Amino acid sequence: MNRPGECMCNMFVWCIFALIVTVPICTEASRIRHYRWNVKYEYKSPDCYEKLVITINGEFPGPTILAQEGDLIYVELTNLLPTENVAIHWHGIRQIGTPWSDGAEAITQCPILPGQTFVYKFTVDRPGTYLYHAHYGMQRSAGLYGSIHVAVGKRKQEPFSYDGELSVILNDWWHKSHQEQAHGLSTIPFIWVGEPESLLIGARGSYNCSLLKSISNAAGSGSICNSTNPQCSTPHILSVKPGKTYRLRITSVASLSSFNFLIEGHNMTVVEADGHYVEPFVVQDLNIYSGETYSVLIRADQDPSRNYWAALNVRGRQPKTPTGRAILNYIPNSATKFPPNIPPTGPLWNDSSYTLNQAKLYKAKAGYVDPPPLQSSRRIILLNTQNKIDGYTKWAINNISFVPPQTPYLIALKHNLSKSFDQIPAPENYLPYDILSPQKNQNTTYGNRIYKLQFNSTVDVILQNANMLANNASEIHPWHLHGHDFWVLAHGEGAFDPLKDTEKFNLKNPPLKNTVPLLRYGWTAIRFRADNPGAWQFHCHVEAHFFMGMGVVFSEGVERISRLPTSIMGCGESKRFFRH
Amino acid sequence: MNRPGECMCNMFVWCIFALIVTVPICTEASRIRHYRWNVKYEYKSPDCYEKLVITINGEFPGPTILAQEGDLIYVELTNLLPTENVAIHWHGIRQIGTPWSDGAEAITQCPILPGQTFVYKFTVDRPGTYLYHAHYGMQRSAGLYGSIHVAVGKRKQEPFSYDGELSVILNDWWHKSHQEQAHGLSTIPFIWVGEPESLLIGARGSYNCSLLKSISNAAGSGSICNSTNPQCSTPHILSVKPGKTYRLRITSVASLSSFNFLIEGHNMTVVEADGHYVEPFVVQDLNIYSGETYSVLIRADQDPSRNYWAALNVRGRQPKTPTGRAILNYIPNSATKFPPNIPPTGPLWNDSSYTLNQAKLYKAKAGYVDPPPLQSSRRIILLNTQNKIDGYTKWAINNISFVPPQTPYLIALKHNLSKSFDQIPAPENYLPYDILSPQKNQNTTYGNRIYKLQFNSTVDVILQNANMLANNASEIHPWHLHGHDFWVLAHGEGAFDPLKDTEKFNLKNPPLKNTVPLLRYGWTAIRFRADNPGAWQFHCHVEAHFFMGMGVVFSEGVERISRLPTSIMGCGESKRFFRH
Repeated sequence: MNRPGECMCNMFVWCIFALIVTVPICTEASRIRHYRWNVKYEYKSPDCYEKLVITINGEFPGPTILAQEGDLIYVELTNLLPTENVAIHWHGIRQIGTPWSDGAEAITQCPILPGQTFVYKFTVDRPGTYLYHAHYGMQRSAGLYGSIHVAVGKRKQEPFSYDGELSVILNDWWHKSHQEQAHGLSTIPFIWVGEPESLLIGARGSYNCSLLKSISNAAGSGSICNSTNPQCSTPHILSVKPGKTYRLRITSVASLSSFNFLIEGHNMTVVEADGHYVEPFVVQDLNIYSGETYSVLIRADQDPSRNYWAALNVRGRQPKTPTGRAILNYIPNSATKFPPNIPPTGPLWNDSSYTLNQAKLYKAKAGYVDPPPLQSSRRIILLNTQNKIDGYTKWAINNISFVPPQTPYLIALKHNLSKSFDQIPAPENYLPYDILSPQKNQNTTYGNRIYKLQFNSTVDVILQNANMLANNASEIHPWHLHGHDFWVLAHGEGAFDPLKDTEKFNLKNPPLKNTVPLLRYGWTAIRFRADNPGAWQFHCHVEAHFFMGMGVVFSEGVERISRLPTSIMGCGESKRFFRH
Repeated sequence: MNRPGECMCNMFVWCIFALIVTVPICTEASRIRHYRWNVKYEYKSPDCYEKLVITINGEFPGPTILAQEGDLIYVELTNLLPTENVAIHWHGIRQIGTPWSDGAEAITQCPILPGQTFVYKFTVDRPGTYLYHAHYGMQRSAGLYGSIHVAVGKRKQEPFSYDGELSVILNDWWHKSHQEQAHGLSTIPFIWVGEPESLLIGARGSYNCSLLKSISNAAGSGSICNSTNPQCSTPHILSVKPGKTYRLRITSVASLSSFNFLIEGHNMTVVEADGHYVEPFVVQDLNIYSGETYSVLIRADQDPSRNYWAALNVRGRQPKTPTGRAILNYIPNSATKFPPNIPPTGPLWNDSSYTLNQAKLYKAKAGYVDPPPLQSSRRIILLNTQNKIDGYTKWAINNISFVPPQTPYLIALKHNLSKSFDQIPAPENYLPYDILSPQKNQNTTYGNRIYKLQFNSTVDVILQNANMLANNASEIHPWHLHGHDFWVLAHGEGAFDPLKDTEKFNLKNPPLKNTVPLLRYGWTAIRFRADNPGAWQFHCHVEAHFFMGMGVVFSEGVERISRLPTSIMGCGESKRFFRH
């Protein structure tokens, strides 16, 4: 039985169609899952405060894509926003052979205009937990996101077993519109988005409505904040049967926050991170950063006569938002019966060694994940700094604050439109630099230079954190790479030391990830193979930071791409090609 | 001396450039006025309530374009909205030879994408008072508008004299964002935009902030509604010297309201309407509809020891918004000293005969405005009805609710992209119909058919109003035609009678206009020459009504257009032309 908006198609017929439209992969085992999505605004009240949210077929979050390893996914997206464009990124899907379907506006496609229908076609070539979200302006913070769960192929097995699955999407939430947030970040004086009004588990949170009684909702039928609204009046429910084991597929789409997630009295065994198996290890609570996905196993082995809080807390920034909460419901207890205690607040938000130590627990699952090449042919150091440009507050990488070009890189590179972006190679480092102090020369420049990587080469990137503009302040930056996974070779504190720290790299069983945190005043070393022809963003997954310029672009092997689909064109220099 | 963002260019140099880019008109007397406009959001508080407003170079309303008859206007517009496209219509400018500069999204161009720069180039070929505004979604209601004042040529004279000019832009104002308004109109259950929170004269109004004290502004430094904000704490000031005569250039950009404008104790002599001189007549108060422009002369001949209210009131809908007000300041009195009385409320809002009688006062100025051709070769009757489609509330013309196509008509027509819109001709009428009752069959259909007009033919359009979906309700619809002026041959009440009413047409000296009200339960007859190659929208200028489908499209002589600029391309089928 299919879900609304999904059609599971007969393979034979669709494979022929797929050949016509040059979708590259269509094996015997694959199926096509065809979705028709209408993207539009709806009023939603996830934390009891009513605001316009970008929905898919009226749903928030968008529907979960449930697929099997090797399936082809067709998402026929119609933009029903009245004046806004849109683009959706399939986070963790490498888009091998379909680099134009990555959904990164200005990198791999022109945005999808209002009224327009665009078809994303890609293969989910590996089992695991992924996500999708808007990749344009700050539309992710408006609610345009969802999960992708890919099951293992038919004759394969996961390296662990469980009795049921539960989906847990974590988010932080603001009452301001994404337009208001984006404006504040790009004006003088700077208006920071501030701390979230609430934390959401499964798109449910709770805001204290008492201050807002006087403002009416859109329909004029009540208050804009209504704690009895069924969208928020009960927390998200995770129902379990006593004695059974569950796989929680946990995703963070946070705009800003680093999270700690825990369930009262229940250990979690971490088994998967970003679509790759890890050597199982047990934690009482899980640190999870924006753009990361995890699978953890929990066993319902506690007193079955009551329910338990699942709790979500902010890390790395002083928490000013109440703990987010969901109910772990032991069947047959009433699902909405609150646990007796107050929700737990987790480890101290600023316990950096706790943070670092948990990050170091991840090892790739033996026999499932290839080890990295022992050598890399290039090492790029990316210094993360907060800066100013003409009084505007910005983030910069090696002292360049990223501004996307008008013509998407993929089109510009494939069609040799050399004027569409700065052809000078992006800088390999920005050294020497005192990472413990505010930047001496705060001024930076805008830029759109890229890193051209030799196809099939092995590249190391050292992410280096630093002090912000304010004294004694440094923030966590979860970095996400499109089109690739990378091995996380090491995390460290302070300035990266090429001699000493290279020796600490885990070259034996580092985890494969697509998103990794750069911790406060620390460094993170990653390695990847530049083996996916295309143009790929690498950026901080904090929505505000990326909007303020915190990203770079890699490209490799674009000459190997045969032909780009016309549907990604229409902006910048790709207009010039109109045939009269 | 030039204003910020404007550059007055050397004629000789620019004329050569103009030839290269095939701007058709460059006479000896013409100058080029070059503007660079950045379109972006800013927080503004025109009625003391802070909201995001779409500004031009930070200004709201946008800068007034001050030009002389025959000048070329270059507006180099850069869209700095983060995710929204934009398009600006130059209302009242016929765009002879530049149909791609009309700024009607989906009709004459693809929208301007975020980050993109688009250059509007057109000639202001006649003196008069015009306006410009966003023509995309409901962005006009977000504040993207301004005035165009075109002076007579150097050796010419106006047929009246005055000592000074004053600009008066009238508007109604809502606190909801344009996204919220647009969403409400396109959802089930329908959420009407409601009556305006305030009426603005010169972008200033006053809202009673007392209910909203608890909500903080964006910067967190005070309340969202602040009656001491200098943007709203004093009304708009019109300063005059006793004994002098002033030309008020009055423009309505109202989203919804029909207005009555008056100045306590001062008669107004109407001398210009929509850029054409009229036989002067005197009124105590002026009815003005959205999209109309007027010049009136006032003489500062009252007691000079005090100031006077200029007052703005709603007509045609039961007023639920306080009178908008400005101060007619007699120099040297303090400009901000309030007049002693409360602002006048004007004639009764539902006095239909008053409305009709004032509409009938307009006659073209003898010797300045050509009379219409005595015959027309085609008569199109456009029935205005409110309808339903699948439960959505819509407006329809001849039972078709307009939905713009993905490919702008101008491109589709010029390049014979026949699949981009419905090629069946739009209906010539929808008769017989009982205009006094709600529509029997409420259901209508979406459509994008057009009226192809024979080039240089004379066309009559009879606008026919009717009852809405509710009983005993009919609304005023100000209809605006792009690319042309039309003669207003007659206004009438009830159903148009082809035999009797045709005889009432004023074929001697009807006024030339580009916007005309269709009054409640009435009809309006217009005539125009289809002499401007292009595709042209004709629509109700009420922002919500047009958004709900209340418009049609005419086209003529598109084969005479040599070549369309590439800059208008990029959407719909104009993507297909990307050259590999």
